Amino acid sequence: DKSRTNMTENGLLHPERVLTLDTMNPNIKRVEYAVRGPIVQRAMQLEKELQEGVKKPFTEVIKANIGDCHAMGQQPITFFRQVLALCSYPELLNDNKFPEDAKDRARRILQACGGGSIGAYSASQGIELVRQDVSRYIVRRDGGVPSNPDNIYLSTGASDAIATMLKLLVSGEGPTRTGVMISIPQYPLYSAALADLGAIQINYYLDESNNWSLAVGELRRALEAARKHCNPRALCVINPGNPTGQVQSRQCIEDVIRFAAEENLFLMADEVYQDNVYAEGCQFHSFKKVLFEMGPKYSEKVELASFHSTSKCYMGECGFRGGYMEVINLDPAVKAQLTKLVSVRLCPPVPGQALLDLVVNPPQPDEPSYSTFMNERTAVLAALAEKARMTEEILNKVPGIRCNPVQGAMYSFPQIQIPHKAIEEAKEKGQAPDMFYCMTLLDEMGICVVPGSGFGQRDGTYHFRMTILPPTDKLKIFLAKVKEFHQRFTERYS
Amino acid sequence: DKSRTNMTENGLLHPERVLTLDTMNPNIKRVEYAVRGPIVQRAMQLEKELQEGVKKPFTEVIKANIGDCHAMGQQPITFFRQVLALCSYPELLNDNKFPEDAKDRARRILQACGGGSIGAYSASQGIELVRQDVSRYIVRRDGGVPSNPDNIYLSTGASDAIATMLKLLVSGEGPTRTGVMISIPQYPLYSAALADLGAIQINYYLDESNNWSLAVGELRRALEAARKHCNPRALCVINPGNPTGQVQSRQCIEDVIRFAAEENLFLMADEVYQDNVYAEGCQFHSFKKVLFEMGPKYSEKVELASFHSTSKCYMGECGFRGGYMEVINLDPAVKAQLTKLVSVRLCPPVPGQALLDLVVNPPQPDEPSYSTFMNERTAVLAALAEKARMTEEILNKVPGIRCNPVQGAMYSFPQIQIPHKAIEEAKEKGQAPDMFYCMTLLDEMGICVVPGSGFGQRDGTYHFRMTILPPTDKLKIFLAKVKEFHQRFTERYS
Repeated sequence: DKSRTNMTENGLLHPERVLTLDTMNPNIKRVEYAVRGPIVQRAMQLEKELQEGVKKPFTEVIKANIGDCHAMGQQPITFFRQVLALCSYPELLNDNKFPEDAKDRARRILQACGGGSIGAYSASQGIELVRQDVSRYIVRRDGGVPSNPDNIYLSTGASDAIATMLKLLVSGEGPTRTGVMISIPQYPLYSAALADLGAIQINYYLDESNNWSLAVGELRRALEAARKHCNPRALCVINPGNPTGQVQSRQCIEDVIRFAAEENLFLMADEVYQDNVYAEGCQFHSFKKVLFEMGPKYSEKVELASFHSTSKCYMGECGFRGGYMEVINLDPAVKAQLTKLVSVRLCPPVPGQALLDLVVNPPQPDEPSYSTFMNERTAVLAALAEKARMTEEILNKVPGIRCNPVQGAMYSFPQIQIPHKAIEEAKEKGQAPDMFYCMTLLDEMGICVVPGSGFGQRDGTYHFRMTILPPTDKLKIFLAKVKEFHQRFTERYS
Repeated sequence: DKSRTNMTENGLLHPERVLTLDTMNPNIKRVEYAVRGPIVQRAMQLEKELQEGVKKPFTEVIKANIGDCHAMGQQPITFFRQVLALCSYPELLNDNKFPEDAKDRARRILQACGGGSIGAYSASQGIELVRQDVSRYIVRRDGGVPSNPDNIYLSTGASDAIATMLKLLVSGEGPTRTGVMISIPQYPLYSAALADLGAIQINYYLDESNNWSLAVGELRRALEAARKHCNPRALCVINPGNPTGQVQSRQCIEDVIRFAAEENLFLMADEVYQDNVYAEGCQFHSFKKVLFEMGPKYSEKVELASFHSTSKCYMGECGFRGGYMEVINLDPAVKAQLTKLVSVRLCPPVPGQALLDLVVNPPQPDEPSYSTFMNERTAVLAALAEKARMTEEILNKVPGIRCNPVQGAMYSFPQIQIPHKAIEEAKEKGQAPDMFYCMTLLDEMGICVVPGSGFGQRDGTYHFRMTILPPTDKLKIFLAKVKEFHQRFTERYS
């Protein structure tokens, strides 16, 4: 116990700090989050050097490390921003430049806020009106499957709700410690939250050779192995997939639900890319909808939390940190505990709640903003679909790179062949081989992607995750540079 | 292990839920947060009944349970909301109805955002420009003591930063488990966060008979007692005080710093009410400033995190969840861990960051919005000062109620005499006596305050916390009703 034994002989002060790597929370040391890791810090440094006039083999850094739509030039949806401006400064309600439907929405939201201000705290679970609108959205989306506003919890982005739900699930010590099944590759929020909570991460592998599909046999293998050393209690699924871009079939979702029911697992469905489906023949099916279509044997039993966000889809409003979670079959006593827990942080950001309300209640065909809204929405999704197709096509032409179709979400996760000599050099530097590859790609080409090791991958395989968000022209340059680099890198280390 | 043994004989499904009170995270069950507890749920129910036409002995519920300024009718600062509207919908930059300084601020903030949009993620530590502005604000506030933007972390309200800092500090098991000293009475975020983290709460008592002052002797008593069963590593101070409304003297702060240095404690200074100082002769002194004025022996050694927020002071913008923390003498390796940890949640809400930028960089004397801004700011603070004075004066005229002056913050924490028979009746109902008192006050008078037991108090004493936020007219009615109720309650149980 260092903090007590380092009293100096002569005086008041101690030579060592209270909080050091040795004395800090050991769980936090185990947390990793590659999407904003060393690659991104290096990218920012390179950008600074470019600004200062330092010569580089490139004139700009193209970042495809994070699903940050507006940062990559995507424009906000006009209607959403008009309503947010009206909510921020209600004097504008007297301004005839704003369409009437935007004003109506703003008045409706403001009336639901304490003192008519988005500066007031909301209820901790979120503004009741917004939760009602979210429920109606879910009912429409799921073809009439009922939704109860009491089961909706608004959140600070989806990450907040996911971490909160995981926190509720964690208990036990040693062999009874809670285990949580997550896909590999995964979005590293999951591994980070589990490390933070000291829960056991149980990996199940998506099948790369079958377009990153999820097979129940693999779930069963992972579960049985895990039961030897922990208490598996939850199964997390990301659909459409991050970082892998697959869209799950209805059959697959049914299989997963049946598995969760058989094995008594709490289901967590991360569905933040629900509008991001591009491939022909693919369709988004919510876990909630499939669960209810499977009949009361499942719909009255399986515990499910599903998550959505304002950050992705066609709106891409990451900065507002809006989101919600719907809980199904949650024990009422646990629900009361959840409500108590979220009340400690008072409430999710109210501007994000207002924005979420617009996402789930957008302009209707008889309203003045409808056509502009639809044009903007369609244009964003069409551009993403085109970029998804282009990414797959160009990358698959590069010898040594192979990638699955980007059926949905915003990412490609191509497999890259790394020559043996490069793997050796990486080891000498103490880097993962794909980190070495991505760092070299960044330093030589100004291209910023995230190594596959940050998401998890089968041993001996290497990948990187890239977003499809750069504007089409820039994405073309980006892909051409990846191609050029991969050829050069392969030659250099062959 | 229930989840494995409840397999039914005949089928797939298990009769018990995965997540129950028995199987959930036991730490979360221990979390309490009185500010939004049963009293508030009852108040909301009463409001609904009034709306539905149910007859009550009152026509409205006056809520003084939470520091929610706008909900109580306080108006937002015009300049802040203009800039936020401009940032939300930059088309308005072409509108000549907005003052030029508001447009300049909006352009400056937007330029610091990815893609020029508040819909982009920011750096996880917060927008660099905003952190620079926060640093400049701190330097001005503290009479020139330097501040480094690298030491500023923007947050989702102050609660987020406080919980994050506590999380970093927690380690060890059994007698080496981290203990954290908090004042009693306290703001229940602290006890809730410590319960959530499984850390040990160490209570030190403020001296009610000496205007809720903090005495080093009491700190030492609490610390020595705690060292027998845990490892005390941090000391939290709230100044101006919540729920107690005192403003600490410079001498007291110096004593606390010296104590923290002697005893090797990490200091956490919750200073969210730094502009809310009303009493003559009182002045806000930041821990940072006093620390640096004490010379390098302290300023180069003592680890300090101080917290501020957009939710209180004259702006009261709770809904935006803006805030920051400044860390001093934090081990660089721990700082890297902190940066990694906050990156998992991507970033604090960007509208809240923009608002914080305006709070720390308000209109200047040569700018067009200055006089309006100053008038609005002064009016809010003057009204609060008047209500602080009025609250103390009226409550102290009630036999059986005694309260200290509200020197600062937004709360009074009066001590109430509860007759023995009422204490007996509360016990029969399984309620804390002050909960019984407050529930009866709510049911009979429509007055919503929070029992002292939610904040902690010396055994055998009873209090409630009320905000001074209701508008002056309503606060007068409120205080008259408290007086009437207390007399009636005392007679009934005598």
